[in-house]
Amino acid sequence: MKQIILTGDRPTGRLHVGHYVGSLSERVRLQNSGKFDEIYIMIADAQALTDNAEHPEKVRQNIMEVALDYLACGLDPEKVNIFIQSMVPELTELTFYYMNLVTVSRVQRNPTVKSEIQMRGFESSIPVGFFCYPISQAADITAFRATCVPVGEDQMPMIEQCREIVHSFNRIYGETLTDPKIMLPSNSACLRLPGTDGKAKMSKSLGNCIYLADDEKTVRTKIMSMFTDPDHIRIEDPGKLEGNTVFTYLDAFCTDEHFAEFLPEYSNLDELKAHYTRGGLGDVKVKKFLNNVMQSILGPMRERRAYWEARKPEVYEILRKGSEVAERKAAETLADVRAAMKINYFDDGNLMK
Amino acid sequence: MKQIILTGDRPTGRLHVGHYVGSLSERVRLQNSGKFDEIYIMIADAQALTDNAEHPEKVRQNIMEVALDYLACGLDPEKVNIFIQSMVPELTELTFYYMNLVTVSRVQRNPTVKSEIQMRGFESSIPVGFFCYPISQAADITAFRATCVPVGEDQMPMIEQCREIVHSFNRIYGETLTDPKIMLPSNSACLRLPGTDGKAKMSKSLGNCIYLADDEKTVRTKIMSMFTDPDHIRIEDPGKLEGNTVFTYLDAFCTDEHFAEFLPEYSNLDELKAHYTRGGLGDVKVKKFLNNVMQSILGPMRERRAYWEARKPEVYEILRKGSEVAERKAAETLADVRAAMKINYFDDGNLMK
Repeated sequence: MKQIILTGDRPTGRLHVGHYVGSLSERVRLQNSGKFDEIYIMIADAQALTDNAEHPEKVRQNIMEVALDYLACGLDPEKVNIFIQSMVPELTELTFYYMNLVTVSRVQRNPTVKSEIQMRGFESSIPVGFFCYPISQAADITAFRATCVPVGEDQMPMIEQCREIVHSFNRIYGETLTDPKIMLPSNSACLRLPGTDGKAKMSKSLGNCIYLADDEKTVRTKIMSMFTDPDHIRIEDPGKLEGNTVFTYLDAFCTDEHFAEFLPEYSNLDELKAHYTRGGLGDVKVKKFLNNVMQSILGPMRERRAYWEARKPEVYEILRKGSEVAERKAAETLADVRAAMKINYFDDGNLMK
Repeated sequence: MKQIILTGDRPTGRLHVGHYVGSLSERVRLQNSGKFDEIYIMIADAQALTDNAEHPEKVRQNIMEVALDYLACGLDPEKVNIFIQSMVPELTELTFYYMNLVTVSRVQRNPTVKSEIQMRGFESSIPVGFFCYPISQAADITAFRATCVPVGEDQMPMIEQCREIVHSFNRIYGETLTDPKIMLPSNSACLRLPGTDGKAKMSKSLGNCIYLADDEKTVRTKIMSMFTDPDHIRIEDPGKLEGNTVFTYLDAFCTDEHFAEFLPEYSNLDELKAHYTRGGLGDVKVKKFLNNVMQSILGPMRERRAYWEARKPEVYEILRKGSEVAERKAAETLADVRAAMKINYFDDGNLMK
């Protein structure tokens, strides 16, 4: 069986280092592993519109930003297929038919839906479209016959819901849809990167994100003002690692090679941590090291971003072609779905049978 | 502004005289009025599947039956456009985007949805697709830019919901969708034709329906065993009209011309009723008259049905062409919708703007 990946992001803002460490770096790794026959990366504008119906302009503007972020990260259009969700109308048709296979109370019980509703403060005024997004996601996953869906652990209930839909459909209409598997990230430690202010959630409004597109100076400024240990006042004081954002970022990003290159007096992060906790190591020195680490990762991305920003018509073409390829694949699946449901009335005079 | 009608039926069974008097006869009248520029008549298979997901075969089989019933009634494919809902995938895409404009609690408050849910005994296990059918109906109505939607009074909340969606969409994205008006039937007295057993609801399982496709003998048998006044035992007894199904049917179907033709001793229904209530008129005589009335209405339908049943490939072509015309119209509206939402990214390089 073909190994197929579907993954993606909602284009509601530029991508940041949290996205990179949580999923984008993993995607680049999967892309280069040679283990997958097809990789679809969806810019989920239609899903973004389910709770941004009044701001289609914001969603539209961010499509190009997300595409540039993808290319900046090293996603390669020769190896992955980047497409825009709303350009594949077959997904809405699949959603429509899957909606008949799920009860309202089942969606209400979905823990991810519950927490997303809470997070957005929707309560009883949830848009129906947002409420139905687990079903729409099942359409996205099955349309491409994805076998692997790389997501975080918090998305497990969504994949469960998708699998239930697959099983219901196959039971009622005969074996048609492909059962997907969740693929949890290999570096689960760094899934939940906090904001630079130490707050658990990175958010544009809090101004606590380091964006992939930030220039060198902006990144340095953000790192130098990062939240550390508020009780670590004099250099000689012992420092705490817990809740210390600079060390959380080092956990996520630095390697032994970074020490060799930028801070050869320590051979690895454990040594640095030991010095910090026993006292005598200042925050500024650690932050400067983190800055070197981040710049060495973000530098090549910045260059690739500049390259593609100067070639936007090419990016446009990548998205247009990617969306064409995606639509072709989804149309094949939809044809199978309609045939299984026997609602392909005008194929081979099926209506007369 | 063009005058456009959208109406239709769910293909879950053959149509009966209740459908005829409640809506089909009205449609034929509207079709022949010359007052409408476009008339779309939808065989709502996709809607039928929302609560028949496990029985697609039943839905499929009934599409041809409903089409034959339409043609039997005198709907003329030269004047109206008969199409199959699922053959117009644009409707699912419109539904998908409209779902963002309606909250879950708003649908829950819709009285028609409430009573339909109760009628079907769904309670908490309502399929999401069924729950969303007011939104899907709004897609159907607006896709064809319908100005008039001929439905019963009980459907008023559905049209209200549609109008709310139209107003939300136009407010957010600019004037795009056409505001529909409900068109209540002119003969509202006969909207709720009871079953032949006097029960309020006609249903296949109760065996109390006279179908448009029933043969002469079946119709006669059903009429002769109709529920009348259980206390009207001897001919000379006074009879009651209230709850007397035979008279309810006469109210709905007979005209003064029928008296002239079949029962010239009375000039109209009032005279017949007066005789019945004062006593001296037997049920059998009234039933025989009703049978003559019904046969004179159903006879020409039966002939037209036989004509088209012998020409099923032509009916197939009527549906195929009708669906093509409908899809063209819906695609135009969808293009306007996408342009208004500015998600027509690849038209005129809109993504780059």
